Amino acid sequence: MMQYQNIWKKSLLTTQNRFFSNSVSRLGTNGKRKATGVVFMNMGGPATLHEVHDFLYQLFADYDLIPISKKYQPTIAKYIAKFRTPKIVKQYSEIGGGSPIRKYTEYQAKEVCKILDKTNPETAPHKPYVAFRYAKPLTDETYQKMLKDGITKAVAFTQYPQFSYSTTGSSLNELWRQIKKFDPERKISWSTIDRWPTNEHLVNAFAENIKRKLEEFPEDIRSEVILLFSAHSLPMDVVNTGDAYPAEVASTVYNVMEKLKFSNPYRLTWQSQVGPKPWLGAQTLAISNFLSPQSKGLLFIPIAFTSDHIETLHEVDLGIIGESEHRAKLKRCDSLNDSPTFIKAAADVVSDHLKSNQLYSKQLPLDFTLGKSNDPIVDLSEVFGDHSKN
Amino acid sequence: MMQYQNIWKKSLLTTQNRFFSNSVSRLGTNGKRKATGVVFMNMGGPATLHEVHDFLYQLFADYDLIPISKKYQPTIAKYIAKFRTPKIVKQYSEIGGGSPIRKYTEYQAKEVCKILDKTNPETAPHKPYVAFRYAKPLTDETYQKMLKDGITKAVAFTQYPQFSYSTTGSSLNELWRQIKKFDPERKISWSTIDRWPTNEHLVNAFAENIKRKLEEFPEDIRSEVILLFSAHSLPMDVVNTGDAYPAEVASTVYNVMEKLKFSNPYRLTWQSQVGPKPWLGAQTLAISNFLSPQSKGLLFIPIAFTSDHIETLHEVDLGIIGESEHRAKLKRCDSLNDSPTFIKAAADVVSDHLKSNQLYSKQLPLDFTLGKSNDPIVDLSEVFGDHSKN
Repeated sequence: MMQYQNIWKKSLLTTQNRFFSNSVSRLGTNGKRKATGVVFMNMGGPATLHEVHDFLYQLFADYDLIPISKKYQPTIAKYIAKFRTPKIVKQYSEIGGGSPIRKYTEYQAKEVCKILDKTNPETAPHKPYVAFRYAKPLTDETYQKMLKDGITKAVAFTQYPQFSYSTTGSSLNELWRQIKKFDPERKISWSTIDRWPTNEHLVNAFAENIKRKLEEFPEDIRSEVILLFSAHSLPMDVVNTGDAYPAEVASTVYNVMEKLKFSNPYRLTWQSQVGPKPWLGAQTLAISNFLSPQSKGLLFIPIAFTSDHIETLHEVDLGIIGESEHRAKLKRCDSLNDSPTFIKAAADVVSDHLKSNQLYSKQLPLDFTLGKSNDPIVDLSEVFGDHSKN
Repeated sequence: MMQYQNIWKKSLLTTQNRFFSNSVSRLGTNGKRKATGVVFMNMGGPATLHEVHDFLYQLFADYDLIPISKKYQPTIAKYIAKFRTPKIVKQYSEIGGGSPIRKYTEYQAKEVCKILDKTNPETAPHKPYVAFRYAKPLTDETYQKMLKDGITKAVAFTQYPQFSYSTTGSSLNELWRQIKKFDPERKISWSTIDRWPTNEHLVNAFAENIKRKLEEFPEDIRSEVILLFSAHSLPMDVVNTGDAYPAEVASTVYNVMEKLKFSNPYRLTWQSQVGPKPWLGAQTLAISNFLSPQSKGLLFIPIAFTSDHIETLHEVDLGIIGESEHRAKLKRCDSLNDSPTFIKAAADVVSDHLKSNQLYSKQLPLDFTLGKSNDPIVDLSEVFGDHSKN
C-alpha cells in the first residue's frame, strides 16, 4: 500500500499537467487520494415544523415537478405555500414533528460508502453527501460543502429508483444550475445513477419487508391478503409526455412479485393526487375503500420511495388506514429505511456504476427530450463527464 | 402402449361411474384417449369486408370492453356500427380486404398442439380451437364444435399476453355465457391461462424481431434508434378501476429491454384511442410526431397483440408511419405471427399450465372483483374445474 502511494506521488511530481488519467488526478496536493462523492438525491422533507413553509414553497415553485406557469410559478408558489402551511404543519406534527427522510438518507449514504470503500478500492475513499430538492440540505449547500472538501469526482445517485422527469429530472436540472453557479471551472466531474428500478437487492429488500409484514396476518388468510403497491401518482399531463415513471414502477412491482412467486393477489395503485387536474390512477384510497369491506386483508407497500415520509406516515398510516372502518384488516409494509438489504442494494448499484465508467443511462437523453422544464439541462454531455480540461 | 390402453379399457369397463380420476374419464367410449382442447381466445377481426359491420356491432355491444350504458349498449352499438362501417371497410380494404388474425391464430394453435403432443403425453392428443370475441369463429360456434368433437377437458388460452378485464376478462365472461347456454351438464371441464406477460420465449420472440428490424437501419445510427413499444390504450375509466393491464404491459416491455441489454432508448406508448373520453397516454402518434423530426430513427413494436391486425397494418403502418413527413426514418417491427420462437412460447405456457393443474392464476379473482361488466362471471370456481359431478 505504501509502495503504491509512492508510485503515484512520484508520478504526480514529475508530470504536473492537467491531462493526467483519472486515477492520477485523484491524488490531492498532500498526496492522499481524493474522495469520491456519493450524493444521495431525493426530494427531502422538513425536519422540523419550522421548515414546512419553505419546503412547500420550494416544492410548488418547481415547474419540473408541478408545471403551473412558466412565468408566474414563483408567485403562485408563494400563495400556495402560505395557504397550505397550516394544514401541512398539522400533518407533520401528527407524525412526530418532522420528516425522518434526512435521518434515514444520511444513514444510508454513510453505510453505502463504508461498503464501497471495500468493494471499490480504485475509487476509495467514498464520501457520503445528501442533496435534497426541497428541504435542507439543498443542492447548493451540499455543492459548496463538496467543493470545500476538495471533491473532484462525484456520483449523483437518485433515491427515486424509478425515473421521472419530475423527480430525478428535476434534481439533475437543479444540479446543473448549481454547477453553473458554484463550479464554472468544473472542479467536480459528475456522473449520475438516474434509475435502478429492478436491482436484485432492491427487489429482495422489498420482498423481505413484505414477507415479514404478511406474518402479522393470521396464517389461514395470509395468502389471500391483497398486496397494494402504492406509488406517488403523476398528473396525466406528465404521464402523457411519455414520462418513464409509470412503466418503471410497474417493473419494480413485477420483479418483487416474481421474487414472491406471485404468492398473493396484488395491484399497483397510485397515491397523493392533489389539485383539480386528472392524475394517473387507480387511486390507492379508492381501491382500498372498494376492496376493504370484502377482502380478508390489505397490505400497502410503498414502492417508489425508499424512506418513510409524509405520504407513508400520514397519508397511508393515518389517512387511508387510520380512517378506515376496516382498519383492523389493513397494514402497511415498512419502508426500506435502514434495511441492511436495501443498503446492500444501494451499494451494489453505485459499485456497478463506478466500475462501468458510464456517465448516465442510455435512457436519460430521451427523458430530457420528452420532459418539460422552464430551466433544463439542454445537453447532458455538458453536465456529465470530466470538463476540467475545457 | 397397447398394454397401457388395455389397462385403461379394462378400468373403464369395470367401473362405469362418474367419479373416475381425470385420466380415466378422458377415455372415450371407443377406448381412445379424448383430446384436450386448446382454445386460443382473442378479439378477432373481420376476415372479409362483408364481416366488418357485424364485427363492429359485436365490439361496441361489449360493455366489458367499452362501458357505455348497461341499458342502452346494444342500441348504441347498432348506431355506432352503422355509422363507422364505411370508414372501417375502407381501412380493411386498404390492408388487403380483411384481417389476417384468423389465419395466424389458427396456424399458431395448430403448431402449439403439435408440440404439446410431444411435451405433454399425459394430456395428448391436443386439439386446437379458436374462439374470437367479435369475429368468426365466435365462442358459441367453437363451443358447439368442441362438444361435437367430444372434448371433455379444455384450456381457455388468452392471446392477450397481458391481462385486461376488457379483453381477457370479456372473453372469459363470454365463455361463461356459452357454457351456461350449450353445456349446462358441464361435459367440458375448463381451466384458463389468463396472462403470460413475461414468458421467457415470448420475451425472446419480441427481442429477436426487434434485433432483426434494427438491422434495417444504418449501422452507425442503429443504437440511437428509439424503440417505441406500442400497446392498445385503455380509457382512464378502466385504468382507474385498477385494471392489471398497464402494469403487465410495462413488465413485458421491461423484460424485452433487459433481454436487449438496454441497447437502445425506449418508451412504452399507447395507441388506438377512440371517442371523447380521456385514455391512457402517452399516445404513440403524439410521441412519434414529437420525436421524429429530431431523432435518427424510430422503431414501433406492437407489444400487446401477438398477430397482425388493423392496429398494426393500418393505424401504425399507413397512419403513423405512412402519413409522417419523416417516414424514411420510421419502421415497424414485425408482429409475432408465425414466429417459431413465439409458437414455442405459447406451447411452453400451455405445457406448464397443463402440468401445474392450476385452474386460473392467483390474480384472476381480484381482476374480476375490480372489473366492471353487465353480465359477468360472479364466482370463478363455478366456471373452472370439473363440474361434471355436480
